Amino acid sequence: MFTMRAIGHVRSPYHDTAQVPKGPGATHDADGAIEVLPEFEAGLQDIEGFSHLYLIWAFDRAEPTRDLLALPPTDDRPHGVFATRSPQRPNPLGLTVVELRRRDGATLHVHGVDMIDGTPVLDIKPYLSSVAADRLRFGWFGEAEARRREGAGR
Amino acid sequence: MFTMRAIGHVRSPYHDTAQVPKGPGATHDADGAIEVLPEFEAGLQDIEGFSHLYLIWAFDRAEPTRDLLALPPTDDRPHGVFATRSPQRPNPLGLTVVELRRRDGATLHVHGVDMIDGTPVLDIKPYLSSVAADRLRFGWFGEAEARRREGAGR
Repeated sequence: MFTMRAIGHVRSPYHDTAQVPKGPGATHDADGAIEVLPEFEAGLQDIEGFSHLYLIWAFDRAEPTRDLLALPPTDDRPHGVFATRSPQRPNPLGLTVVELRRRDGATLHVHGVDMIDGTPVLDIKPYLSSVAADRLRFGWFGEAEARRREGAGR
Repeated sequence: MFTMRAIGHVRSPYHDTAQVPKGPGATHDADGAIEVLPEFEAGLQDIEGFSHLYLIWAFDRAEPTRDLLALPPTDDRPHGVFATRSPQRPNPLGLTVVELRRRDGATLHVHGVDMIDGTPVLDIKPYLSSVAADRLRFGWFGEAEARRREGAGR
């Protein structure tokens, strides 16, 4: 067992999960901030040189469940929770890549938040490299997209 | 406070952190596996359609520290821990992108492990999109690289 604590909190325009854009075509254009707790501010030294950051955060308002299948909003069939970004997962961990716009002391102004306001942040890491887009396969996300396009074309 | 438990463990050719390639030029070419615990196997349904996965894992063998500066092996000066991938961080969370080669029941055969054998895995998520390489800035990583190149050219 591992015990984690918040190192800061998200400021976001979203106050309810229903407001957060979801699905493969969803764009995350919201500006927000990470307010790092004063006792962890020293850990931000030199972070301003990075254009993008990983945020690992806690789904602190997700209902606990023991169900290992999730029904994503973007598909009409269930998938294993580890093949989805469902908030209801064995460990309530969220992961988001944000663009770092500016640091102001213990506050990181970021672009691309998809969490709700007040979400506890557990860790921040520099984003160092990407997988080339032409090497990615998306499994059921791609199939669900294709079905939706087909349905729309009928 | 959030309590997390292992959902599986990493099988890796590395048995000591000193064996893991580190730094901006390091390539992670090691083949390994994620052995998901039997009670979580149902959460893997449809994961085989994804080419790449995020693994969130625990630095279970890192010495605890309260130091918020880290001295990365790739530089001669310290940086804030959130601007590094140091194992010694307020919450002992690691993050790795791996390529999924094959699923065999509860075992995921993956390429690109950089953890040591037996590392507890906390979560698995599909890798859905990349930040375009030409939009990335690397801060001190890039500066340390430039200094090393300059030193080597002398």
